[in-house]
Amino acid sequence: MKIAVFGTGVVGRTIAAKLASAGHEVMIGTRDPAQTLARTESDYMGNPPFPVWHEQNPLIKLTTFAEAAAASEIVFNCTSGAATLDALKLADEANLNGKVLVDIANPLDASRGMPPVLAVSNTDSLAEQIQRAFPQVKVVKTLNTMTAQVMVNPRLLSEESAVFVSGNDAEAKAQVADLLKRDFGWPSVIDLGDITSARGAEMLLPIWLRLMGALQTPLFNFKIAR
Amino acid sequence: MKIAVFGTGVVGRTIAAKLASAGHEVMIGTRDPAQTLARTESDYMGNPPFPVWHEQNPLIKLTTFAEAAAASEIVFNCTSGAATLDALKLADEANLNGKVLVDIANPLDASRGMPPVLAVSNTDSLAEQIQRAFPQVKVVKTLNTMTAQVMVNPRLLSEESAVFVSGNDAEAKAQVADLLKRDFGWPSVIDLGDITSARGAEMLLPIWLRLMGALQTPLFNFKIAR
Repeated sequence: MKIAVFGTGVVGRTIAAKLASAGHEVMIGTRDPAQTLARTESDYMGNPPFPVWHEQNPLIKLTTFAEAAAASEIVFNCTSGAATLDALKLADEANLNGKVLVDIANPLDASRGMPPVLAVSNTDSLAEQIQRAFPQVKVVKTLNTMTAQVMVNPRLLSEESAVFVSGNDAEAKAQVADLLKRDFGWPSVIDLGDITSARGAEMLLPIWLRLMGALQTPLFNFKIAR
Repeated sequence: MKIAVFGTGVVGRTIAAKLASAGHEVMIGTRDPAQTLARTESDYMGNPPFPVWHEQNPLIKLTTFAEAAAASEIVFNCTSGAATLDALKLADEANLNGKVLVDIANPLDASRGMPPVLAVSNTDSLAEQIQRAFPQVKVVKTLNTMTAQVMVNPRLLSEESAVFVSGNDAEAKAQVADLLKRDFGWPSVIDLGDITSARGAEMLLPIWLRLMGALQTPLFNFKIAR
């Protein structure tokens, strides 16, 4: 499958590498590929600049949001929540219409200090903002409730944990659930409901951030005990 | 221990009965005891009116918020989130000061339709509102992330799940954690941090409500997979 991954950070890199290793043709979309390839500094988390990662993953092409979207059947949004709507506008609605958009972004706002709050929540969500702005795109919210390593390797944890999907299109959710199972190794997927249920998934972030502090590691995930 | 339980609904009844069976002297506080004892109708969930439950639990005294608070060493807030601040004002600050207030309430607002949204969230929480209104009370948020039956009987579920505490007073949190372990049977308790971390615990409600719909039961709880 031809898949576009928007975002050159840790989430985008992790998702892109896993999809490529599963045999998909993966393109990473970014605002300005030349600028991204000119980076020489590690980010604030100590992750190496994109060119260092790209050398180790030469089969994954870096291009613009628009070119990546136009060439792909499915798009993963791994941009930061604050940059998501701009990135999707740059991708051009015509290149996205009718396609599945897997939205992994969280609308975190650290401008008021740490820990970050949500820029949108409770009565709305980033996923709903995307769905309203791009009504012909099949938005599926998923994977935003865990750290990148766990997204693509749920067996990193000692027991089976939970991954959720939210979206208005049942077929799109089923397609994403299949991909999560087959390519990422998730044994099962919980369907929370329509796109408004993404509010609940995004509102997990505040406790996720506190748990990372309490447990002193991002390597955990929510599980539903029955 | 002398314990006040505020609220005559399912959560208050469940907590009060469990504390009484553990040997504590329990008083339920309500706005108007005579009115509560005159009820003859089941609630919208089909729960019997308070007098029916009270006949089966005759050792638990029903009284006013103020009398229950004055006579107790620790207070459990099991009122609805919308009624909490009024109930605490009726209890009288002088009767609460210096005591531990275990806040189980969720600030759910169903006035805009179902599922309910949160009346306060993200940059504030009900627990913080209580702490600001009653600065000499030791507010500990806990148990609000699960259904009442699981609160007092975690072994109802097939595996160990998570219970959180949030609060500014370390000694009060330790006292509540001890009570959760000894009297309710929780094997361990996760300390999320200060009272602002209650935002995360309260913001679990939207996904909890969606999960209840997806799983068709309230008998589940979050667990942290490592």
